Amino acid sequence: MSATFSMQRRVEWRDTDAAGIMHFSTFFTFMEEAEHELLRSLGLSVSMDNGETHISFPRVAAKCDFSRPLRFEDVFDVEVSVERLGTKSITYAFRFVHEGDEIANGTMTSVCCKMDESPPRSIPFPDSVATKLKAFVQ
Amino acid sequence: MSATFSMQRRVEWRDTDAAGIMHFSTFFTFMEEAEHELLRSLGLSVSMDNGETHISFPRVAAKCDFSRPLRFEDVFDVEVSVERLGTKSITYAFRFVHEGDEIANGTMTSVCCKMDESPPRSIPFPDSVATKLKAFVQ
Amino acid sequence: MSATFSMQRRVEWRDTDAAGIMHFSTFFTFMEEAEHELLRSLGLSVSMDNGETHISFPRVAAKCDFSRPLRFEDVFDVEVSVERLGTKSITYAFRFVHEGDEIANGTMTSVCCKMDESPPRSIPFPDSVATKLKAFVQ
Amino acid sequence: MSATFSMQRRVEWRDTDAAGIMHFSTFFTFMEEAEHELLRSLGLSVSMDNGETHISFPRVAAKCDFSRPLRFEDVFDVEVSVERLGTKSITYAFRFVHEGDEIANGTMTSVCCKMDESPPRSIPFPDSVATKLKAFVQ
Repeated sequence: MSATFSMQRRVEWRDTDAAGIMHFSTFFTFMEEAEHELLRSLGLSVSMDNGETHISFPRVAAKCDFSRPLRFEDVFDVEVSVERLGTKSITYAFRFVHEGDEIANGTMTSVCCKMDESPPRSIPFPDSVATKLKAFVQ
Repeated sequence: MSATFSMQRRVEWRDTDAAGIMHFSTFFTFMEEAEHELLRSLGLSVSMDNGETHISFPRVAAKCDFSRPLRFEDVFDVEVSVERLGTKSITYAFRFVHEGDEIANGTMTSVCCKMDESPPRSIPFPDSVATKLKAFVQ
Repeated sequence: MSATFSMQRRVEWRDTDAAGIMHFSTFFTFMEEAEHELLRSLGLSVSMDNGETHISFPRVAAKCDFSRPLRFEDVFDVEVSVERLGTKSITYAFRFVHEGDEIANGTMTSVCCKMDESPPRSIPFPDSVATKLKAFVQ
Repeated sequence: MSATFSMQRRVEWRDTDAAGIMHFSTFFTFMEEAEHELLRSLGLSVSMDNGETHISFPRVAAKCDFSRPLRFEDVFDVEVSVERLGTKSITYAFRFVHEGDEIANGTMTSVCCKMDESPPRSIPFPDSVATKLKAFVQ
């Protein structure tokens, strides 16, 4: 049994473009926002201390397929689950839903990194983090 | 022999985020900007009349893989070519390059649509458009 | 006795810049968002029909003074009141507050326009609109 | 005799909103971009070392009056001059011009700050910086 996290948002004016719809790049910022909301709901953060190490999760890939447009003031849900949880990386899956219709779906891959080094070095997810994220694996 | 189109930009302050780097969503806006520059260089436009029909090229998919960060004031190139030119859709390939290093690469797929109908209906690229884009097929 | 409308938001990652704070231009998008929320709460909209006329409220001026920074994940309130309600224009006043501290304050002036003409022509606020906004005059 | 600095830009798709025009908040990001271009043209930077001190110029106020809209692909100029150069602060004046018409004008005030302290402390402009900026005082 896997959990899905869901976040609701409204299309604001700044998110629209001259075609009268939500600009396609904004889907990516909402994916990121949903990732952050999910982490927050688990008591985690996108930038957190783990013992003496400062870790974060820089993204290495993102993609999105667009089926239908969203318009100003449309209220939509972003559903998040985990498509793949590796030792050092995680791929989130996202679905944008408006009034029962799928608007778009995409994925985003982040890598667990030790940020005290330059450049940041990938490390395994701390157990406490991995355990929490595991519940969302599809 | 295929052509590549290239556009140069500088990372502006509004493009950065609190990690001190260009926000990942901005790579997508620069892909779009490069697509528009390419069309403009060919005497085309992202929203154009073709005889009595108004056509445009809504995007249906976008993805990007990120290898290295860009920072404020970095000057970079976006190289564009055509990965696949179908009858009704086109997939552009993009490479972001800074001081000889590949920063990111991605693709974006747009569909040729008749915009006078609602919803817009996909149609074949007009010959005059297809011919010009063909030169950029890899 | 005048009413104040208040809206709460969180600083999202896309709103930050390389100084680690909310980018100054984002204060303006939140002012606009607060204006729209206020209109919505009154059963109005930023783009609405009034009898046979389509009206909207293009902005002609905006300003903001910044006292303190907001950081990623800070939760803040935007308080809205009406500084001046003219026959054809309205000036909203905004205060950004975080944990009891004023972060910024600004104003924005919009003009009631008949949008069916080109260019849009300024007209008096319909009575039904003016009456509702009057409650927020300071 | 005072100098004016000028920067040319094109309205990109991401800058537009559902009214088909450049979003009002984007005028502020272009003011900032013009400030940075001006500093760069003088061999200065928005974040620079002055001897052993790291200085920057956080903004404390911004405003803009909007007269006419800009549309997708419009090419416009941003003219910058200095309205007031104080000991510790500077107010830039900006004019947006498109095909000879003034589109908008605004101001932005920045304060010279020593960034090695927390919070940053305002200090007088170094002489070398003040001398260069003086040429742009109206």
